[in-house]
Amino acid sequence: MLNKEIVARLKGGVAVRGVLTAYDGCMNLVLDDAAELDKSGEPVTRYGRIVVRGSQVIYVSTGEVAP
Amino acid sequence: MLNKEIVARLKGGVAVRGVLTAYDGCMNLVLDDAAELDKSGEPVTRYGRIVVRGSQVIYVSTGEVAP
Amino acid sequence: MLNKEIVARLKGGVAVRGVLTAYDGCMNLVLDDAAELDKSGEPVTRYGRIVVRGSQVIYVSTGEVAP
Amino acid sequence: MLNKEIVARLKGGVAVRGVLTAYDGCMNLVLDDAAELDKSGEPVTRYGRIVVRGSQVIYVSTGEVAP
Amino acid sequence: MLNKEIVARLKGGVAVRGVLTAYDGCMNLVLDDAAELDKSGEPVTRYGRIVVRGSQVIYVSTGEVAP
Amino acid sequence: MLNKEIVARLKGGVAVRGVLTAYDGCMNLVLDDAAELDKSGEPVTRYGRIVVRGSQVIYVSTGEVAP
Amino acid sequence: MLNKEIVARLKGGVAVRGVLTAYDGCMNLVLDDAAELDKSGEPVTRYGRIVVRGSQVIYVSTGEVAP
Repeated sequence: MLNKEIVARLKGGVAVRGVLTAYDGCMNLVLDDAAELDKSGEPVTRYGRIVVRGSQVIYVSTGEVAP
Repeated sequence: MLNKEIVARLKGGVAVRGVLTAYDGCMNLVLDDAAELDKSGEPVTRYGRIVVRGSQVIYVSTGEVAP
Repeated sequence: MLNKEIVARLKGGVAVRGVLTAYDGCMNLVLDDAAELDKSGEPVTRYGRIVVRGSQVIYVSTGEVAP
Repeated sequence: MLNKEIVARLKGGVAVRGVLTAYDGCMNLVLDDAAELDKSGEPVTRYGRIVVRGSQVIYVSTGEVAP
Repeated sequence: MLNKEIVARLKGGVAVRGVLTAYDGCMNLVLDDAAELDKSGEPVTRYGRIVVRGSQVIYVSTGEVAP
Repeated sequence: MLNKEIVARLKGGVAVRGVLTAYDGCMNLVLDDAAELDKSGEPVTRYGRIVVRGSQVIYVSTGEVAP
Repeated sequence: MLNKEIVARLKGGVAVRGVLTAYDGCMNLVLDDAAELDKSGEPVTRYGRIVVRGSQVIYVSTGEVAP
């Protein structure tokens, strides 16, 4: 998944997308060109780099495929 | 359960299904051909690979049998 | 409780029933012929084997007796 | 409190009552002749033995005294 | 605070009052002549001794002073 | 921040204010002349000393400045 | 991110902004010229220095870019 665009589903209904540039054993994630997504998967807020705390991650996916 | 299709019931009412290709002692799960399911068990979003954080797992099942 | 049918009350109002075939010090449970129960204790979804994460368990009981 | 009837107030508004036959440093509790109580303290579901996970306990009391 | 009457504000909106007779590094508390309080600070349920699990404590106070 | 008046924002929408007289590595806090604040920052309940459990702290601030 | 203005999204829908002057391995953060933000990102309460507890952090970002 490294250096690929991923989607991270977080606690509290938050979802973020970005290029995974680093992670550690606690699933702390560093995402570049990141954005917070709304329920339909559209970007609500765009960021440069974000650091996601692993304890908040529900799952990480390599991006959606066609339903 | 390894290399079989499983359903994982997660905190916050989230459920995912996929082929279990790896897991560890914290119940972190790697699922391939994964999908997030709605309340009735139908796929809502399809993913390639997802990594589920063990701390969010309520239970993992080897799939439903007829009621 | 080993190899007996138990009911496990889990966080988030979830309850499951099944034959307890294994458990560990963190109260991770392996249940066979398992089912998720609704509020009145009736099976909603039947599974083969489920693995319940101990951190989600509120209590485990050896099954209900007559009120 | 050992071998006495206690009431355990648990997370999520759950309360249980029973004879405390064992406990450990994490406040895991084994209760015999146990019952889950409703808001007014009346038994809703009676069980034989239940094992309560310490992480869900808010407090344990040696039973109510007259208001 | 030892052997004084204290009020403990707990998660989930629960508050208890009693004489602090013992505590440990995890803020587990033993209170005697304890009572659970309602929102206005009045006793709802009186207990003899209660043992409060430290992980549920938000704060402990040496009792209210006049507003 | 030691011996200064601070505001601590706690989980569950609780906020307290007081003079920080001690703290430790887990952000357990001892506040003197403490008070619980309502949403607008006004004292609802005044206490002498309170001990706040670090796990409930969201953030601690050195008090508000003019908006 | 050190000595830059960051936005920290915290549990419970709380967001704060400030200059990151220190942090540690648990993502405890020290922010100067800090403010709590409302849903639209506008400052609601301004503080001097705040210390954010890492366990409450969902993610930290280097500030928004144009949508």
